[in-house]
Amino acid sequence: MQLLDGKATAEAIRAELRKAVEERKENGKKIPHLAAVLVGSDGGSLTYVNAKVKACDEIGFQSTLIQYQSDISEEALLHKVNELNNDPDIDGFIVQLPLPDHIDELKVTEAIDPKKDVDGFHPMNLGNMVLSLPGFLPATPAGIMELLKRNNIETSGKNCVIIGRSNIVGTPLSIMLSRNSSPGNCTVTLTHSRTANLPEVVKQADIIIAAIGRPEFVTADMVKDGAVIVDVGTTRVPDATKKRGWALKGDVKFDEVAPKCSFITPVPGGVGPMTIASLMINTLRAMDLNNK
Amino acid sequence: MQLLDGKATAEAIRAELRKAVEERKENGKKIPHLAAVLVGSDGGSLTYVNAKVKACDEIGFQSTLIQYQSDISEEALLHKVNELNNDPDIDGFIVQLPLPDHIDELKVTEAIDPKKDVDGFHPMNLGNMVLSLPGFLPATPAGIMELLKRNNIETSGKNCVIIGRSNIVGTPLSIMLSRNSSPGNCTVTLTHSRTANLPEVVKQADIIIAAIGRPEFVTADMVKDGAVIVDVGTTRVPDATKKRGWALKGDVKFDEVAPKCSFITPVPGGVGPMTIASLMINTLRAMDLNNK
Repeated sequence: MQLLDGKATAEAIRAELRKAVEERKENGKKIPHLAAVLVGSDGGSLTYVNAKVKACDEIGFQSTLIQYQSDISEEALLHKVNELNNDPDIDGFIVQLPLPDHIDELKVTEAIDPKKDVDGFHPMNLGNMVLSLPGFLPATPAGIMELLKRNNIETSGKNCVIIGRSNIVGTPLSIMLSRNSSPGNCTVTLTHSRTANLPEVVKQADIIIAAIGRPEFVTADMVKDGAVIVDVGTTRVPDATKKRGWALKGDVKFDEVAPKCSFITPVPGGVGPMTIASLMINTLRAMDLNNK
Repeated sequence: MQLLDGKATAEAIRAELRKAVEERKENGKKIPHLAAVLVGSDGGSLTYVNAKVKACDEIGFQSTLIQYQSDISEEALLHKVNELNNDPDIDGFIVQLPLPDHIDELKVTEAIDPKKDVDGFHPMNLGNMVLSLPGFLPATPAGIMELLKRNNIETSGKNCVIIGRSNIVGTPLSIMLSRNSSPGNCTVTLTHSRTANLPEVVKQADIIIAAIGRPEFVTADMVKDGAVIVDVGTTRVPDATKKRGWALKGDVKFDEVAPKCSFITPVPGGVGPMTIASLMINTLRAMDLNNK
């Protein structure tokens, strides 16, 4: 068994991006500038946004963190989105989800200029993905593709079972892995809560993507010997042995499953760092897409 | 074995649409108006476009057919698209594909206002489909969904294997059938030229969608007893017994496969009429989407 080390892969990507920034500087070009909008003080969201700002710092991107109290009006938030759309200094930006209940997340997502939507959540970017057209790929699935690619995981002709059909991971990843591309060319089966005999279906997979958000859902009996496993889950479960009182658990029962795998991502240190790395890749690509 | 009769189902839809047109007339509302742009004189394209115009006539929609020689410039075609986008009398329009080589099909598709894109080919509409948002669904997969629905085919929890990953049929249908909707909630496997052991994979399917464009590709040995089969293929093959010299063949070897099925679409008279019916449904929906 080998670890699919997202942390190390993300560090390699950061090194490349640092170099790209240096080259842009030498050629007198603009430095990528990412803005992140955070509403409220949800612990998870704050952690994610801080990690994104930190990643920018490390590679020499400019970053701007815009924080609002959770009682900001939808109108005021949309006004800010529009301002960022029209600010030529901002190359890409994200509005960290979830948003408070009184704000329509879809309305906010659709208000973002697709050319600055480095999270890849805008319908236009998802449509471009379906058609294999240039655009921003959603960060988590794109990070998983990059992880497979940089670790030379063979995907062509492999049976891939994706557990979970979310809009931001399972569904887009099912499309990316099915396309005639590398990585890609998988025979993808997208499974979900209505799937009959899920364990049997998963057992046929050469590649398993667990993105269901249920800690330790995938057990050893569901896994074929030699499978490749990507664990997208990150659930906080109470853990009295930790000072902070919780531990991060993936969707895979790592200890019993890992010995059967050829490759497996750890949690943490697997998909998480790759998500941030692909956000950085998208931000650099924003310069190309917008001819800067 | 029962036929999934697309012709009869489409006729039922046309009757409903006729009624909807009558009601709109009675309420002093605008009658739906579809425009179709045809470039060149490809026999297949001409047949399709004529069938669409005829369907409009039959249900009382207005229609306008705009024909160009195959040497029309890309610029002139884009100019026409822009004119149709801005014509308040046109509710929806299509540009019949394929276009001649000197015209960029993608550029033309993206130039169509997504709110008038009743073919559902624009990236924005495909993205809306991925996110289950309002928009126009691509006509062929939407027609298949409607055919399954109106014939009470149970899809929830069923294994569905789609053969062929095209942008206009296989890929969008894989998403539609996976969604938490009715029809939908299938466990979908999307297969293609790189799929290993395709016959074995297909044999596990409760529902088979053949959309590969290879006549009689699906044979009896690939089909589980009691399967539901939707045949999207329409290939013209030489046939000396026919006056016109060719016959239309589906992707399924009908004679040997049909006896094993619970339901199967014929070719012709299966998916084809449903594609046109869903174009008509989209044209009527354009009125709602655009508040007319």
